[in-house]
Amino acid sequence: MIQNLTIIGLGLLGGSIGLGTKKNASDCQITGCAHRDKSLIEAKSVGAIDDWTLDVVKAVKNADLVVLCMPVGQIPAWIMRIANHLKPGAIVTDVGSTKATICHAGEVIRPPSHFVGSHPMAGSEKTGVNVARADLFKSATCIVTPESTTDECAVQGVSTFWQTLGCRVVRHTPTIHDQLVATISHLPHAVAAALVGVQSAESLDLRGKGFLDSTRIAAGDPALWRDIFIENRDNLVDSLDNFTRELSDLSALLRDGDAAMIEKWLRDRAKSRVGL
Amino acid sequence: MIQNLTIIGLGLLGGSIGLGTKKNASDCQITGCAHRDKSLIEAKSVGAIDDWTLDVVKAVKNADLVVLCMPVGQIPAWIMRIANHLKPGAIVTDVGSTKATICHAGEVIRPPSHFVGSHPMAGSEKTGVNVARADLFKSATCIVTPESTTDECAVQGVSTFWQTLGCRVVRHTPTIHDQLVATISHLPHAVAAALVGVQSAESLDLRGKGFLDSTRIAAGDPALWRDIFIENRDNLVDSLDNFTRELSDLSALLRDGDAAMIEKWLRDRAKSRVGL
Repeated sequence: MIQNLTIIGLGLLGGSIGLGTKKNASDCQITGCAHRDKSLIEAKSVGAIDDWTLDVVKAVKNADLVVLCMPVGQIPAWIMRIANHLKPGAIVTDVGSTKATICHAGEVIRPPSHFVGSHPMAGSEKTGVNVARADLFKSATCIVTPESTTDECAVQGVSTFWQTLGCRVVRHTPTIHDQLVATISHLPHAVAAALVGVQSAESLDLRGKGFLDSTRIAAGDPALWRDIFIENRDNLVDSLDNFTRELSDLSALLRDGDAAMIEKWLRDRAKSRVGL
Repeated sequence: MIQNLTIIGLGLLGGSIGLGTKKNASDCQITGCAHRDKSLIEAKSVGAIDDWTLDVVKAVKNADLVVLCMPVGQIPAWIMRIANHLKPGAIVTDVGSTKATICHAGEVIRPPSHFVGSHPMAGSEKTGVNVARADLFKSATCIVTPESTTDECAVQGVSTFWQTLGCRVVRHTPTIHDQLVATISHLPHAVAAALVGVQSAESLDLRGKGFLDSTRIAAGDPALWRDIFIENRDNLVDSLDNFTRELSDLSALLRDGDAAMIEKWLRDRAKSRVGL
C-alpha cells in the first residue's frame, strides 16, 4: 500500500499522476518536488499534490513511492540526488520514454530500496500541469522494465500503481523496450516532423484533416524529443533505415506502374491498421 | 443558378454533396445515377437525392451541373459516356484527387457545355453513402483546376457551388494541383501505410494515441488509393525521394549525436506545425 507518494517534476505527466492518484486512491498523501516553485504552486492549486518542497531530501525521506517525471535527459541526475535519502522499502520509478540509460542509472538504488523503470504510453503535444488530467492514463499501455535482478515485489508494486491509474501494464527489458518504442513511437514522431518539413507554403495551403492528424505529434516539445532522440539514437537510426526501405519498395512499385502490387501493398497495411 | 443537379456515384462524397445541397440550396432538384441501384436506393432513403435512374443519358439531359463522384480511375470513362448528352450551358465537374488526366479527358466536353475539374480536400477512411454528412465540406479547401482555355463563367459557377457547401475555394492548374497534392495528401497516405508496414506484433502492442492518429488515413480504401497513386505516380515518386532525403538528414544528425542541430531540426518543424 502506497501511503506517501512523491512526484518530482510537475508537468503534464507528473500533474496527471497526482490528479489520477487523488481520484483513484484518495487516502494517499502526495508531495511534490521540483527545481523551481512555479509548477508546484500550480500543481497544488489544481489539487494534483497535497504539499510541496524544493528540498529533495525532505521530499523523498518518507516516500513509499517516488515517481520521477522530468524529461529523460534529466532523470539520471535526479536518481543520483535521491539514492541515499530513501527509506528502506521505498520504490522509485520514472516516466521516461527511453529506458536503457535510465535503468542503468537506477542501479545505484539498492535493496532495501528499489528502482523499477516505467514508460506510460500517454502524453500530448501540449505541456504543463495546467493541461494535466486525472484520466490521462486511462486505457493507456504502461511498459514496466525490470532487469533480471529487480525485486519482484517492487515490480508488482509499480505495476499495481499504474493499474490504479487505469493503465494496462506490460513488461519488457529496458533493451527490448527501447527497440520497440523506437519503431512505434520515436519513428512516428520523426516521420511526422519530416512530413511537415517537406511542405511548401503552397502545399500547406491545401492541407486537409488527414495531413493535420498525421502530423499532430510533430508539434511536441523539441527539447523533450531531442533528449529522447539522442538517448535512443542507435535504435532510431535502425528504424529510419527500415522505414526508408519500406518507402523504397513502394517507389519501385510506382516506377513499375504495378497496379495490382500497389493495391496489395496498400491493402496489407490498411488491414493491419483497421484491426487496431 | 443551379436548379437541376446530377450526382453520378453515391458514396461518401456524392452522398455528402447531395445532403449539403439539400441543406444549403433546398430548392435544387437532385438526380442520382450510378452503375447499380444499391447506393441510389440508400441515397434516396437518407435524403441525399430526390430521384434516381440507371440511365446516364436521362440522368444528365436536364442537368445544369453534373458532379462525377466515382474513384479517379473511372472518371474519364464517365466523361466519355455523358459528353454528347449534355444540354447547352451545362457544367460538369468531379471530385477526383488527381486532376491532370481527368481534366485532359474533360476536353471532350466543349462549349456550349463546360468541364471544370474540382478536388474538395475532404473525405474519410470510411466509405459509402451511409457515412455521408451535410457538413463534410464545411471549412474544407476545394481546389478548382481550370485550364487557360476554360470558360470563366463555368469556373465561377463551380466555385460558387463548392462555396455553398461551405468550402474555401482556391485555383490551380491541373499540373500544379497534382504536384502539390502529391506532397500534402498522397505522400502522407504512403507514409502512414509504411508506418504500419514496419511494425511487428510486439511493437503494435505498445501503440499509443500518437501512432493511431499518425496512421488513421492508412485505413483508407486500397482500391481507391491504388488509382490515385497510379494516376499521380511521377509526382508521388518525386515526393517520396524528397521525403527520404529529409529523413536522411535527420539520420545524419543522429549518427553525429548533434543535440543542438537535432533540436533545431525538431523546433523548425514543430513551429511550422503549431502555426497550422
